[in-house]
Amino acid sequence: MNPVSRSGGRASHALRPVRITRQFTMHAEGAVLIEFGNTRVLCTASVEEKVPPHQRGSGKGWVTAEYGMLPRATHKRSDREAAKGKQSGRTQEIQRLIGRSLRAVFDLEALGERSIVLDCDVLQADGGTRTAAITGAWVAAQDAVASLVARGLLARSPIRDAVAAVSVGVVDGVPLLDLDYPEDAACDTDMNVVMTGAGHFVEVQGTAEGAAFSRAEMNALLDLAQQGIAELVLLQRESLLKK
Amino acid sequence: MNPVSRSGGRASHALRPVRITRQFTMHAEGAVLIEFGNTRVLCTASVEEKVPPHQRGSGKGWVTAEYGMLPRATHKRSDREAAKGKQSGRTQEIQRLIGRSLRAVFDLEALGERSIVLDCDVLQADGGTRTAAITGAWVAAQDAVASLVARGLLARSPIRDAVAAVSVGVVDGVPLLDLDYPEDAACDTDMNVVMTGAGHFVEVQGTAEGAAFSRAEMNALLDLAQQGIAELVLLQRESLLKK
Amino acid sequence: MNPVSRSGGRASHALRPVRITRQFTMHAEGAVLIEFGNTRVLCTASVEEKVPPHQRGSGKGWVTAEYGMLPRATHKRSDREAAKGKQSGRTQEIQRLIGRSLRAVFDLEALGERSIVLDCDVLQADGGTRTAAITGAWVAAQDAVASLVARGLLARSPIRDAVAAVSVGVVDGVPLLDLDYPEDAACDTDMNVVMTGAGHFVEVQGTAEGAAFSRAEMNALLDLAQQGIAELVLLQRESLLKK
Amino acid sequence: MNPVSRSGGRASHALRPVRITRQFTMHAEGAVLIEFGNTRVLCTASVEEKVPPHQRGSGKGWVTAEYGMLPRATHKRSDREAAKGKQSGRTQEIQRLIGRSLRAVFDLEALGERSIVLDCDVLQADGGTRTAAITGAWVAAQDAVASLVARGLLARSPIRDAVAAVSVGVVDGVPLLDLDYPEDAACDTDMNVVMTGAGHFVEVQGTAEGAAFSRAEMNALLDLAQQGIAELVLLQRESLLKK
Amino acid sequence: MNPVSRSGGRASHALRPVRITRQFTMHAEGAVLIEFGNTRVLCTASVEEKVPPHQRGSGKGWVTAEYGMLPRATHKRSDREAAKGKQSGRTQEIQRLIGRSLRAVFDLEALGERSIVLDCDVLQADGGTRTAAITGAWVAAQDAVASLVARGLLARSPIRDAVAAVSVGVVDGVPLLDLDYPEDAACDTDMNVVMTGAGHFVEVQGTAEGAAFSRAEMNALLDLAQQGIAELVLLQRESLLKK
Amino acid sequence: MNPVSRSGGRASHALRPVRITRQFTMHAEGAVLIEFGNTRVLCTASVEEKVPPHQRGSGKGWVTAEYGMLPRATHKRSDREAAKGKQSGRTQEIQRLIGRSLRAVFDLEALGERSIVLDCDVLQADGGTRTAAITGAWVAAQDAVASLVARGLLARSPIRDAVAAVSVGVVDGVPLLDLDYPEDAACDTDMNVVMTGAGHFVEVQGTAEGAAFSRAEMNALLDLAQQGIAELVLLQRESLLKK
Repeated sequence: MNPVSRSGGRASHALRPVRITRQFTMHAEGAVLIEFGNTRVLCTASVEEKVPPHQRGSGKGWVTAEYGMLPRATHKRSDREAAKGKQSGRTQEIQRLIGRSLRAVFDLEALGERSIVLDCDVLQADGGTRTAAITGAWVAAQDAVASLVARGLLARSPIRDAVAAVSVGVVDGVPLLDLDYPEDAACDTDMNVVMTGAGHFVEVQGTAEGAAFSRAEMNALLDLAQQGIAELVLLQRESLLKK
Repeated sequence: MNPVSRSGGRASHALRPVRITRQFTMHAEGAVLIEFGNTRVLCTASVEEKVPPHQRGSGKGWVTAEYGMLPRATHKRSDREAAKGKQSGRTQEIQRLIGRSLRAVFDLEALGERSIVLDCDVLQADGGTRTAAITGAWVAAQDAVASLVARGLLARSPIRDAVAAVSVGVVDGVPLLDLDYPEDAACDTDMNVVMTGAGHFVEVQGTAEGAAFSRAEMNALLDLAQQGIAELVLLQRESLLKK
Repeated sequence: MNPVSRSGGRASHALRPVRITRQFTMHAEGAVLIEFGNTRVLCTASVEEKVPPHQRGSGKGWVTAEYGMLPRATHKRSDREAAKGKQSGRTQEIQRLIGRSLRAVFDLEALGERSIVLDCDVLQADGGTRTAAITGAWVAAQDAVASLVARGLLARSPIRDAVAAVSVGVVDGVPLLDLDYPEDAACDTDMNVVMTGAGHFVEVQGTAEGAAFSRAEMNALLDLAQQGIAELVLLQRESLLKK
Repeated sequence: MNPVSRSGGRASHALRPVRITRQFTMHAEGAVLIEFGNTRVLCTASVEEKVPPHQRGSGKGWVTAEYGMLPRATHKRSDREAAKGKQSGRTQEIQRLIGRSLRAVFDLEALGERSIVLDCDVLQADGGTRTAAITGAWVAAQDAVASLVARGLLARSPIRDAVAAVSVGVVDGVPLLDLDYPEDAACDTDMNVVMTGAGHFVEVQGTAEGAAFSRAEMNALLDLAQQGIAELVLLQRESLLKK
Repeated sequence: MNPVSRSGGRASHALRPVRITRQFTMHAEGAVLIEFGNTRVLCTASVEEKVPPHQRGSGKGWVTAEYGMLPRATHKRSDREAAKGKQSGRTQEIQRLIGRSLRAVFDLEALGERSIVLDCDVLQADGGTRTAAITGAWVAAQDAVASLVARGLLARSPIRDAVAAVSVGVVDGVPLLDLDYPEDAACDTDMNVVMTGAGHFVEVQGTAEGAAFSRAEMNALLDLAQQGIAELVLLQRESLLKK
Repeated sequence: MNPVSRSGGRASHALRPVRITRQFTMHAEGAVLIEFGNTRVLCTASVEEKVPPHQRGSGKGWVTAEYGMLPRATHKRSDREAAKGKQSGRTQEIQRLIGRSLRAVFDLEALGERSIVLDCDVLQADGGTRTAAITGAWVAAQDAVASLVARGLLARSPIRDAVAAVSVGVVDGVPLLDLDYPEDAACDTDMNVVMTGAGHFVEVQGTAEGAAFSRAEMNALLDLAQQGIAELVLLQRESLLKK
């Protein structure tokens, strides 16, 4: 494996600069702007005192997510999904992933019969929007839960652990952590990994974009992801200490 | 007319603090975050080298707008239009208004057979989102046009004048400039006014929310709007001097 | 201002011939064919003993409107909205305007928890369809309310005043009342004005189609509209005397 | 079979009063209001100088139909299909039937590569709207074709024969011609028959609403329909003699 | 009339080989694969312990049908309706026909307040898919009803008679029974006939594809259909004897 | 790890009985019924001599997939997507997965500017429908390519390798191969793995349904999947030897 030249001289195992800004907007119970380099996603967590039909009367709550991209978050303007009248397959796939990832660390019984809706809207895209969304949504969910505890609606937090996500991929034969858009477009293999604070896997989604990948490559990618997510969890926890 | 108590001790004829941040995102030819107090709208201007069918072969360009609101831009979460599969009547009404307002100051012939698409997305709402959108979209359009001139694609700007907008309304019998959300919810009459830099009207949309309004009230509201828009045009021009 | 030549030698401040035919169809509680010259709109008022969710349990009623145009109401056939699967932005804008205009003169509490639905369908279009629709819908609403009173379901009418509407515009520098389609297509400024019988404004929607318009022009247009609407209200009241 | 009492003392083999008003609206090439008793359908025929994709380049024309019902054409208000965002199965079935019926008497080659679109909109419904629509649409098509001949675009009419339609049904064991709404709601068997001026069948659609029907009943119904359609064709031809 | 050469040397009054396979899939209460020659339709009958709104509280049940065609059931791939986002007019027409046909032999009161949903999905199409669907759906409905009786939910079957269907048509002047796809494409007149086991008509839908047809042709076609349906009813009953 | 009791006494590392039936229907270029135990999916491959817009003029072909489930393929009837007017997020996710998996082994340049559309329709579901679909679609694609070669439209096959898929999961702590529906519903971790004949990964999609999973569990699951897919590839190749 040769050294590759990454933007900003970044090492192959280095995350882009990550910034987490809480209370980015004023109305939501949790409102986090998360930046992975030039990727910027606004993640809001909204508490709703109702649950979808499949949970009604169960005593359990629900956690769900929606994902969107502003039309000019991307290099070339993309059509507005509201104007087209439907969400793309990609959008639905991503929002289902975010929802499952967050539910993996929630004790829905402890949440009680209410919902937390995570809206992840990409203001600026440069690769890794879904992983930034998961990582930011967890921080927003923490703030939303804290507001429920502060208002006496919950005795304790129903969040059992942290959850964060990162992309990894093989570019020109070299495994890289946290791909930006040019790397993502050039990679042979692209994997999104979601893990808990305890270091267990919640989701692993690997796709061979060009050539199929070997078990050895897979292992190298999982190693990178594990280390990157551990760093992200530290950054999440650090952001929650402020204020 | 009695003095009313406005948030922050604002005078009845005073705008909220206005902030215009250019280049708020990196991909669009123009990308302006405009703030009218707590209302924050991201206005991007995208250049597309094509026109809609009704303009094809005419030698003339087109200027159009789309409007959206993030689900948690508001106090209570609103449904995502992309998920519902259609834009509300309100959304369509607003984006048609923004498009007409901007076209009013564009020389479409001078623009040539290309389009400028203005995407106005509300990140945080506190009243006056459509007027902030028009005011910010004009600045974004200026930046997009400047990029066309800089790249030699246009010899001169096809923008003939400034355009800006403000809301006015009667609350408890007192005409007020630039309503915030609580004022908007409480007002009897609500009017959105769009004017050019030269001080002429582009759009006047007045609605009696409660009691119908008199010609005298209408005149008082138009006076307020004229003065407010003159201030906004100064702020627009000032923002363009930077960088 | 020079004299302009209008179809039929009409004066600049003259309405087109207005005809109001009640009970044009047999099933609706109110069914009015209104004609502004060649523009013909069928306005039916239907009583429904239910209200939309936002009014349920409030003890208050609701008044709403829907607008449509037959495909060949126009010079060139337009696509059927039911076949396209959605209502255009223009349609939604108009039906929202009709609904607001009628609600402005209704005491919703006095109506009780029931709805009046106004369906305004354009059989033939020659400019001013939305203003004819508002003017006709009010007459249809009167008939529907009268049927409720006659059946003992209401003790008194919840309609507090008349409401009527007219378009005005500047064509070749001359302010004109009640534009027909060729005038509407040629005008620089187009304004729809909705007023009560008492002479107050309910809606003012002015749009610069070409050049922006001055405060003086606006005043001239409002003068024309005020006079025209006063005439329309007389015609509405006259039509209700029959039978 | 016993005598039944029909509205207005009508005989079992009698049509309701039929009225055909040509040029009911001003823009369409053909515009016919047809009345079968209280059923009133506006049928317009529009000429379009284009054909759908499946006919392009074939040298042949096309004839198609769309059907709609105003929301308050019926006793109880029905939802507007444009607002619901789709046409019902019933609407599609009817407009397909009208289209097939008219195409059956058209020489599409002689029409040339252009379309005739028949819009049939029910203003007032009292049973038999689809049969009235077919009968009226043929008259509107005649007027549209005459305008093409008059303008020199066609040397001769591509319409080879008349086409008309009527409903028949068995009510309380008695075969009846041209059912009105109460009869239609009460009948055991309901049949719509479309025939040419030459007396041949174009469509026969019989449905047992209650009990299945015998071959003898079917024969009685076809006899009634044949006679009724012969009368309708005379009325069509008579209406074309005027003006 | 001359002899025509049919595929496989079939006589003009002969059905194609019919095969009825019960329990073709494992989950549905009734699951029948029916084959009319190369046409293969999977008909499942599902019991649902609820009824649509218009039957709620009536004590009566409901029987309804849905129809679909796999994209490559046909010679040329057709678009998937789920991907296009709507069912074609043809699909809706067919499923309404199947539903009416089955309801014609059901005692909805005896069924009780529950529904039977008949899903008819065409795996392979070679003409006559709707008639095969009706014929097969009846067998599936029998199995579903038998399961209700076996589970003690019904004391006796609410099915009063058999119902089956066949297509007939005139090809080159010769009336033929049970058209395959090439015959269907070539025929002048096409008729679908639905009859009960007792030999009465439930639906007759005849369409002139080319020339209009005479009363004599109609009689010949009905004769053929009557005989063919009598055979189909025997085959239905025979299939129910197994297992 | 304890022994678990699987349906039919199956070992934890054993596939369900797999059956591959080619030419299951007659019209498609490839038409394969694949069965993984009680799961039955009909996979057709259709050749279309056109490509989607993004490939036009590139000289390259395209391979895409659509997925559907008959309403009563499942234990409880599910709504028909064509009737609901949209495909669920799950459906879109699966059809995107099938498409990517097949493209991974296709040389699109060698295919030439044409498309292969894989329709995977589930006739009966018992877990693993997407993995059966991928495995069967590859066989159908082989048949479709063979027909292109046989007709002289391709000199050689553009398929570079086999591709097959299987699900694996952890149930009660035990890693299992090829989950049936009850196992899938009970599992803590569920993983779908797609591999080439050469034993490389194309897709790995692992999801923690309950508890997050460890790296060791992941390795055990990948081992199982590798072995299972190797068996499936043998079965694919064997099925192609027939006829």
